[in-house]
Amino acid sequence: MKHVAIIGSTGSIGTQTLEIARWNQDIKICALSAGRNIDLLEKQAREFRPEIVGLWDEKLADELKDRLKDMDIRVVSGMDGLIEIAEYKTSDVLVTAIVGMIGIRPTVAAIKAGKDIALANKETLVTAGHIIMPLAKEKGVSILPVDSEHSAIFQSLQGNTHDSIEKILLTASGGPFRGKNRELLKHVKLEDALKHPNWSMGRKITIDSATMVNKGLEVIEAKWLFDVAPENIQVVIQPQSIIHSMVEYKDGAVIAQLGTPDMKLPIEYALFYPERRYMPGDRLDFTKLSSIVIETPDMDTFLGLRYAYEAIGIGGSMPTVFNAANEYAVKQFLDRKIDFLDIYDIIRASMDHHKLIENPDIDEILATEQEVYEFIESGC
Amino acid sequence: MKHVAIIGSTGSIGTQTLEIARWNQDIKICALSAGRNIDLLEKQAREFRPEIVGLWDEKLADELKDRLKDMDIRVVSGMDGLIEIAEYKTSDVLVTAIVGMIGIRPTVAAIKAGKDIALANKETLVTAGHIIMPLAKEKGVSILPVDSEHSAIFQSLQGNTHDSIEKILLTASGGPFRGKNRELLKHVKLEDALKHPNWSMGRKITIDSATMVNKGLEVIEAKWLFDVAPENIQVVIQPQSIIHSMVEYKDGAVIAQLGTPDMKLPIEYALFYPERRYMPGDRLDFTKLSSIVIETPDMDTFLGLRYAYEAIGIGGSMPTVFNAANEYAVKQFLDRKIDFLDIYDIIRASMDHHKLIENPDIDEILATEQEVYEFIESGC
Repeated sequence: MKHVAIIGSTGSIGTQTLEIARWNQDIKICALSAGRNIDLLEKQAREFRPEIVGLWDEKLADELKDRLKDMDIRVVSGMDGLIEIAEYKTSDVLVTAIVGMIGIRPTVAAIKAGKDIALANKETLVTAGHIIMPLAKEKGVSILPVDSEHSAIFQSLQGNTHDSIEKILLTASGGPFRGKNRELLKHVKLEDALKHPNWSMGRKITIDSATMVNKGLEVIEAKWLFDVAPENIQVVIQPQSIIHSMVEYKDGAVIAQLGTPDMKLPIEYALFYPERRYMPGDRLDFTKLSSIVIETPDMDTFLGLRYAYEAIGIGGSMPTVFNAANEYAVKQFLDRKIDFLDIYDIIRASMDHHKLIENPDIDEILATEQEVYEFIESGC
Repeated sequence: MKHVAIIGSTGSIGTQTLEIARWNQDIKICALSAGRNIDLLEKQAREFRPEIVGLWDEKLADELKDRLKDMDIRVVSGMDGLIEIAEYKTSDVLVTAIVGMIGIRPTVAAIKAGKDIALANKETLVTAGHIIMPLAKEKGVSILPVDSEHSAIFQSLQGNTHDSIEKILLTASGGPFRGKNRELLKHVKLEDALKHPNWSMGRKITIDSATMVNKGLEVIEAKWLFDVAPENIQVVIQPQSIIHSMVEYKDGAVIAQLGTPDMKLPIEYALFYPERRYMPGDRLDFTKLSSIVIETPDMDTFLGLRYAYEAIGIGGSMPTVFNAANEYAVKQFLDRKIDFLDIYDIIRASMDHHKLIENPDIDEILATEQEVYEFIESGC
């Protein structure tokens, strides 16, 4: 029996993780948490009967406690609650399906408590990879990527040693604006940016895909997950999202993982690794595929990727600045307060303004995020 | 130190194996054998200083003995010599780079002597897979594929269990006549058939690639090597030979191995498995690749593939008939005695005429080969 805790259970990754729990009777969901979606969390609690649930919002948590009074489920709230869930005694693995830097402290707590991490929270490694990876190693816990590209790399690494890696070939769809130049990107509409060609995802990550900031964040994550220098991580545009990523080895062999765009595969692989289990869903049909298109990223137009390489090259607190500035800028773009290309300008200005902290601790990382927000709020 | 014996050391795979031995100081070549190429074998003996060398031809072996009298090297000949080399006491692994059914007995001898097999001889598994694979299992020796496609499958299987395989996706270039129909194939010239689009290989295998008999033989080999039913081996046309083959798993993930067309990679991988070592040579350059083309094989035109599936479906001695009939027919085509499509007719007639032996032993396999030759010689 695999005992699973999920933070962010009502989001896209959280609900798909629960779908996998429905298919696999040997998964026991022991803890669930959400931000504010009380209705769905109540439904999940009644179906999966965890021992503990958490809502970020304290008032809503009180209401949930009332709603679940017929069940023997502990209800918690806030960061304390989140941490209690992350390190919950009966769980083997924590799925960090929560979005944002709020995921960092619970992840650290879970690692300290010896839980394996099925990692879907991007911010954890982007901002605190230098803390997380050594801690995981020290505690002997596995950081298993729940993300199409990193799972593909992880799958492509099986049976090979770290010293045989030549480079990582991280694939990208190129997003809805692939092929466009800066001039054409000047006045793109929010609606256009929200149309991802292959994957159905949340609004924030869809915009990040359009700016290629998302791919930049993935480069940074890959550096930490697989201990590969950024110059050995090459982004390859594969517009159909058929090749999910690749690894090139020292002997010239390239191992790739291909598939349909379905996040349930990386989730299931992370939960049962190294085992593979049958999973319902579409399969790649090579009798219907006529070609797998390969292109080179345009980093002069899609500055999100260029700035990410720059941020991880500098290291320290700079990736936090890159991430926080983007987060704030995307929120403004989603609120129609700024244009698409302003996102890049805001990231640029924030990175230029920042005074680097070489080896930030968690408090300094979170403080850096706040400083970036304040800087942008003040009009850069 | 890895002690390596090679049968067929003067051919394409043999010389490339020796090239790898030049790059890796921890390979010791202990035994070499060739058919009739005395000059090259002498040169190889002087460079690599094996303990034993063999020539198939007895007279040439006597001459070689004379030429090598200044060196402490035992010279042997004929099948006895080949078997002595195959089971040579100091070797760890036998590279079966020899062409034809002549490779079967030495391979069996090597397995019985506990040697791992770096398998490049196609006929071994095609005709005697039902004997070789259980014997290898019993003796605890590894059968390591030295062949671009099977090595790619083997690489794509690393870190996964056999029961998680859904199917094997065996790629094929489609050969020089890809896209042509039967009408167009009626009068193709030998010179056209000898032009392989990607790989530089011997004449026989180049014709086998044009007829797709080669891919058929690989389907049969894959069945034995990876214990996968023929209906779960799907041939995918990939005209550029960039994807060298793939494995689809039960969860829908497809793992592929890609690379440049260089046989030294599978040879080196077989010799040092599971280790990967740096190897000089071209790398796949994804900045120059615009697409990876995928097509479906035309089994109504390229009957070589269809007949191979039929032969392995029937099993027993039928794959031997398929292979022997093709070998004889290709020889006649290379001698300009028959047309291209006659190759298929000869295979068809031989398979139709054959009286099946359900579970042939090595003697029966070799006798079947002779019977097929005689049947064709007599005009089918």
